[in-house]
Order: sequence, then structure tokens, then C-alpha cells
Amino acid sequence: MKNLKLLEGIEISDEKEDLICYSYDASYAKGSIPEFVAWPKNTEEIVRVVKWATAKGLKIVPRGAGTGMAGGAVPVGTRTVVISLERMREVLEINPENFTTTVQPGVINGELQKELMIYELFYPPDPASLDYCTIGGNVATNAGGPRAIKYGVTRNYCLALEVVLSTGTVVTFGNKSFKRVTGYEIKELLIGSEGTLGIISNITLRVLPQPEDIITLLITFDSIESAGKTVPKIIGSGITPRTLEFLDSSCLSLIEKNYELGLPTQVEAMLLVELDGELTSIKRQGEKIVEIARKFKGETQVATDYYSRENLWKARRSISPCLLKIIDREKINIDISVPIDNLSKTLVRLNQISKESNIPIVSFGHAGDGNIHVNILVEKNNEEEKKLGFEIVKKIFEFVVTIGGAISGEHGIGITKKPYIDIQLGRKQIELMQAIKRVFDPKGFMNPGKIF
Amino acid sequence: MKNLKLLEGIEISDEKEDLICYSYDASYAKGSIPEFVAWPKNTEEIVRVVKWATAKGLKIVPRGAGTGMAGGAVPVGTRTVVISLERMREVLEINPENFTTTVQPGVINGELQKELMIYELFYPPDPASLDYCTIGGNVATNAGGPRAIKYGVTRNYCLALEVVLSTGTVVTFGNKSFKRVTGYEIKELLIGSEGTLGIISNITLRVLPQPEDIITLLITFDSIESAGKTVPKIIGSGITPRTLEFLDSSCLSLIEKNYELGLPTQVEAMLLVELDGELTSIKRQGEKIVEIARKFKGETQVATDYYSRENLWKARRSISPCLLKIIDREKINIDISVPIDNLSKTLVRLNQISKESNIPIVSFGHAGDGNIHVNILVEKNNEEEKKLGFEIVKKIFEFVVTIGGAISGEHGIGITKKPYIDIQLGRKQIELMQAIKRVFDPKGFMNPGKIF
Repeated sequence: MKNLKLLEGIEISDEKEDLICYSYDASYAKGSIPEFVAWPKNTEEIVRVVKWATAKGLKIVPRGAGTGMAGGAVPVGTRTVVISLERMREVLEINPENFTTTVQPGVINGELQKELMIYELFYPPDPASLDYCTIGGNVATNAGGPRAIKYGVTRNYCLALEVVLSTGTVVTFGNKSFKRVTGYEIKELLIGSEGTLGIISNITLRVLPQPEDIITLLITFDSIESAGKTVPKIIGSGITPRTLEFLDSSCLSLIEKNYELGLPTQVEAMLLVELDGELTSIKRQGEKIVEIARKFKGETQVATDYYSRENLWKARRSISPCLLKIIDREKINIDISVPIDNLSKTLVRLNQISKESNIPIVSFGHAGDGNIHVNILVEKNNEEEKKLGFEIVKKIFEFVVTIGGAISGEHGIGITKKPYIDIQLGRKQIELMQAIKRVFDPKGFMNPGKIF
Repeated sequence: MKNLKLLEGIEISDEKEDLICYSYDASYAKGSIPEFVAWPKNTEEIVRVVKWATAKGLKIVPRGAGTGMAGGAVPVGTRTVVISLERMREVLEINPENFTTTVQPGVINGELQKELMIYELFYPPDPASLDYCTIGGNVATNAGGPRAIKYGVTRNYCLALEVVLSTGTVVTFGNKSFKRVTGYEIKELLIGSEGTLGIISNITLRVLPQPEDIITLLITFDSIESAGKTVPKIIGSGITPRTLEFLDSSCLSLIEKNYELGLPTQVEAMLLVELDGELTSIKRQGEKIVEIARKFKGETQVATDYYSRENLWKARRSISPCLLKIIDREKINIDISVPIDNLSKTLVRLNQISKESNIPIVSFGHAGDGNIHVNILVEKNNEEEKKLGFEIVKKIFEFVVTIGGAISGEHGIGITKKPYIDIQLGRKQIELMQAIKRVFDPKGFMNPGKIF
């Protein structure tokens, strides 16, 4: 870090080295260089930066840890200030009697998880980047993760949000109670709005007691179609696993190459199933799943001890970063969400597209809720293949919408999916969103150039 | 029913007998008499009624079964047409492979439950009025019910909404996938908007596989405070009951008077706890709850068979209608929602207020999520006591907001709570809601006079 200048006591920088750092995120999006980066430490400092910026006519780009996969946190155009929330890292309250916690937006998801463990509590949303990503960013993108199948996404845990609007006005939406019908749920509108309506400055979340026990099952399949068909059968059996992850053979090879866990790489697909609850009960559920899988020629192994389970998850979470290590290929990643009865059809279609185009497609993700991370691996420095890659993206999105799905399950639209938003939403719906945007931010200061 | 007139083939009436029927709901709200009632049978007919009404300058009041507790479905002011959705009662699809169902808005909650049973599925939200209330009304008020503690409210199951706007434009928000981050979640804004933004014409819901088994426990307490303190302890133990209902002694007496179930009426409070899941597992959970209750001097009985359980629920659901049978008293009912660590404090405060004012207050409801139905029983035809009743409402609401709660957990604001909305929401928040209202309904045709 460099010597920082101060704006009325607030850390701020206009040094090129800082500015470049804040012009990209974890996506392939190319952002522009901001004029300033500011690091407020509390709500009042956010307000002051916002007032200073808007008075100067600067647009505002709120940012958590920059682990976003859609370019939502990178500046677009000129005359921007990035407001980084990374210095707002305080867990303000853990209330084990009300099962709530209140945090500043820059708190790291994984760090909150650790603090909650002391109280035998846990916060279900667990994006793969949980060791780095912030709760504020999670709220701004309505982040999910493997546990969403059983526990839902960020939206399901977010009870109250304090937000700084572009006028500098601070409003708190929601409260600490679990149920509420008191006018329009504006909080719900803010969740997943990717920083375009205001800056989230304080968050109250619902948390849960930790489950008693966990069992992990690995099920391998010779056919990707069978893996896809097994998923709705497991859910239909009345069991709700804690996670129900899908990995195709390319993922398994990639993991083996980097971790040597002894995973079977000769199969076409693997399901990673976790059950939580009372031990005898989840053991019985495990047996039921083994039986279901067998009907689709799936073979099951059980990962019993804590360390083999943790290794497996570390490996699972590393897939996305690992894909960046492939020397000659560049990933275009999307995270489609499909109705689970069309999961098998989707996986087969992805295989087909890969074969037709002769471009490798690596798929993994949250099979239990139909949310698949699709990585189209185009040759580096091959502009023509890259163009083809984006045509494939469009083809996949069109397919997804036809079968009743969504072009993003948990990453958001940002700038990388903005060119495709029309495939998902009709004109009227986009007009309504734009009008809502004007209600909150009439002069268009907040995170311009995103979503629509 | 009377002879109906037709508007381009759509049933409509301006007969006084019909109009009076549609001027009230299940609340104490006094509505005005509409000029017309129309009964469209599909989306296209809704559009035609909307266009006809707005061309004539008539305001529109959408209505399900009229079981609302806040007056949200009753006309206010002059020149209104009630659009009743009760003829739109078709379950259009049940998809047991995707765990979704698509229904018309007039489908009765309980009838949907019955149809789902054939597929061994269930729809969790279960308001007490489930035998009468419609899914459309449930969405408009974000209805909950006893099972919300484990399964959440209507919001958590609503995947897609087709809506007719006041211009006659039809827009579908959401789709059949379980996860989505594709711009602002306008669907979430519509849920709980009490018909003020548009008319819900088609609904896709997520449904779940039926649980294997159910156990019901009755726990009685000599002190209302102990009952309140037991609730967070049960949840903190890692058990999430299917229901965790609270009934005070007045409720128990009321039930005994009408049903003679042999309930203990000498106690101060009762918890009605239901567990669902795999039998051995919930039995063990049941034992754990018995232990926890014992620490607070709670005594537990188990209702094992289906019929005693069903009777108990029938009785529980009848409390609200039973309150109307008290000859000399009139109920002012509210449904506050408080953080559960303040539940005990709230129950004690309600008792206190009742004693201080010498007006009976009967409380029951969903203790597990802090949502309590409070009934202030004022003397009939005693305007002074009624005025005092409303002062008590205000006092309770102020208390609730102070401790971080909500003035309505599942009924909504409608017209009965509109005078108190300022207690809950700040000026800026109300202004934002009004601006959002103008985005959807710039000329103010939709359900005027409600919420704010």
C-alpha cells in the first residue's frame, strides 16, 4: 500500500498504482481506471465521500473484495470514484438469542463464519470465494453457494439493510424480526441490485444453529445424463441434502492435476452430496441416496472424516481459480440456472455445443438447485475463437430462457452479461427497472453502466 | 347469486346486493360500496376489465376471497370496481419433477394442498384461513402461517408472477428456476404489495416433497414468561420445529368452550409444537424439547394420532373466528412480529397493558418466528372503549418498533394499519414507496387508499 491522501480524514487515493488495482475484479470484464479510490470506515464517512463525489460530478462505484464474476464492481466510463468497503470489517453484534448478527459491509464471509462458530451458529450462504468475498458484496449480488439447495441464498438471510443513497441520505430497510408485511419490501429490491441503487453500509442477517453432524457422499457416473437424472430423484425422495454439487470429467481431471485426491477421472460426472442433521437420521438418508444412485448406475463413496471432507471442498472451491491456470486457454464463465427437471437436458446440450464448436466447456456447480457454472475455454490470443465463445454464451442463454431458466443464478449481470439481458427480460420489464433506478438515483450517480 | 350482466362476455354486476358483499373483508375495516364487481376468468379478461375501468375513470380493487385481516381488499372512496379473482380457480400445472406448480390467482390454498397431496408434495404456507383464502391473496399479503418458522412465508415459494398493470400491459416477473440474479427482483416488490401495483394473474410456486412423519407436542406453562423464554431455547437447540405456536389462557378457554378437547385451561400459556421428518429422528427431537420445557416448568403431552392432531389444528385455526362469537365484545386484531429474544418481554408487556387498561387482550400465534396475533377485546357499542382500544394498538406498535419488530407479520397494512405506518417507516422510506407506486401505476388506479 502507498502513502494515502486524506479527504477530511477519510483515506483516499489518486495514485495510479491504486487506481489500476481497482479497475478490475474476478471476471473477464475490462473496467476503466477510476479517478479516485476511497476507503471509508463507517456510514458517516460513506456519506461524506458520496456528497463530495456527487458535488464534483463523479460517478460512484461501490466495491467489496472485488471477487465478483460479472464485472459489477469495476468502473465503466470516465470520472468515477471507487468506494471500497474493505475497511468496514467489523462484526458489530452476534445475538445468539435472536439468531441474528449485524455486520459492516466489508466483513469477509468466511471470517463471519468463524466468529459465529464460537456461538455454535452458522450463516448458510457460502460462495466459493468465501475466504475473500464480503457480506456487502454477497448482498449486492444475492450470492448463493453450494448450501443454497437446503438453506437458500443471501436474500433468505438478510433481515435489514442500511443504505446510503446517492443524495447522501441514509435509510434502513427492514428490521430484526423474521416476518414483516409493512409496505413494499424495498430491501428485497436492493438485494442483488449490484450497487446501482445505493451503498449498503450495515447489514443484519439471520443465522442458524449449527447442524449436529455432516456426512459427505461422492457419486460417480459413466454418463452425464444419468447424473442429471439422479438429482431430481434424490430431492423427490424427501431428502434435502445440505449440498448437491455436480462436477463434469474435465473438472475432476483439473482437481486431480492440482490436488491428487485420488478422484476417479475416467467417469463422465460426479455428484458431491452432503447431508446434515442428527447422525442416525442422515446415515439412513445416505443409504437411501446410495440406492437411488445405483438405479442410474452411480457408484457411491463416503468421505467420513473431517479432513478428507475439507480437502474435497477446498478442491471443489478451487475449480474456478484452477481454470485460470490453463496456460493456453482463457475462460468465459457463466452461471446459468435451470429448472431441475431440465438439468439433464441442459448438461447434454452443453456437451453437444462443446463438440459442435470444438471448444472445451467445463461445467460444475449446484445441481440441486439447477445452478450450473459453465466455463467456455477459448484459445488465448485467438480473437476469432473468443468471438465464437461469446456466440456460444448467447446460444446457451437462449436455450436456458427457452426452458424457463435464468442467465445468472448467483453472479449477477454486471457488465459481462449486460449485452444479453434482453434475452432474459422483456422491454417493459427493463423499462420498469430503469424507472426504479431513477427513483433511487435520479441523476445516475450509482454504479453506472451496469445491468441494463 | 343474482342474474349477472355481461361486459363483452365477462361477468359483471352493479346490483346492490352484490356490491355490498364486496365492500368488506374479514377485518374490522369499513369499506365503501363499489360501483361494479367483475369476475374475469383469465388474464385476457382481466386486461379487458382493467382497460374498460380505467377508460371510465374507475379505480380498481383486486380481491381474492376477502379473508384479509387489514382491509386491503375493500374499496375506499368513490368510483371503484372490485375485480374478484374467485373464478380463476384452476391449478394449471403440477410438475413433480421440478417441484413447481402454476396456478390461477383464485385457487384456494387448501385446495391446492389437496391436489399436491396426490403427488406426495406440499405447499408450506398455511394461513389459518387456508380453507378459504386464495393463493393470489396470499401473494398480495405475503401470507405466512404456523409452518413459517421452518419453511418460510409465501415470498420463499413464489418463483414467478404474471401481473396485469393498470395500463393493461401484462408482464411476467421471474421464472421456473430456483435461483436468479438478473436485475432488480420486481417480483419481490409485488409480493406483499396488497394489490397496489398490479393484478396478479398467474403464479408459479415452488413446492416440497411431503415429510415422512409428524409428531405434535402440547406444552403447558404456569407462567406466560416461561413460555416465552422456552421458545428461543428450543430453536437454539438446533431443532427447527415445523410449527411452534403460542396460545394464552384466554385462547385455551375459548377453544374449550367451543370444542371441549380437554385442554388444560388453568395454565397461563401453551405451546403447540410440531416436528416433521424421519420418525426416529423427530422422536429424539421430541424428547429433547420435553427436557428443555421441563427447565421452564413446562409440562408436555404428545398427540400421537392423526385425528387428535387434526382436531387440535382445527381448534387452533378457529380461535380468530371464535373471537367474533363473544357476544358483548368486539375484537381489534393486530399481528405484531418481534425479535424472538424479546418474545417473553412482549408477552409480559401485553399482559401489563391489558391489566392497566382493564381491557381483555387475547394473544396467540407463531411464537417460533415472533409473530403474535394480539386481539384487543373492546366492549361492543362503547365508542369510548373502542377509542381506548386504538390507543392500545398505537402503544403496542410503538413498543414493537422500539424492540426492532414489525407492526404486521403476515396480515399487511391495508387500511386498518395505515394510520400507524409512520411508526414503522420513516418519511424517506414512505416517499420511496410512493415513488415506486407511481412507476407502476402513475395515475393511481390500483387499490387506492391503502398502505400509505
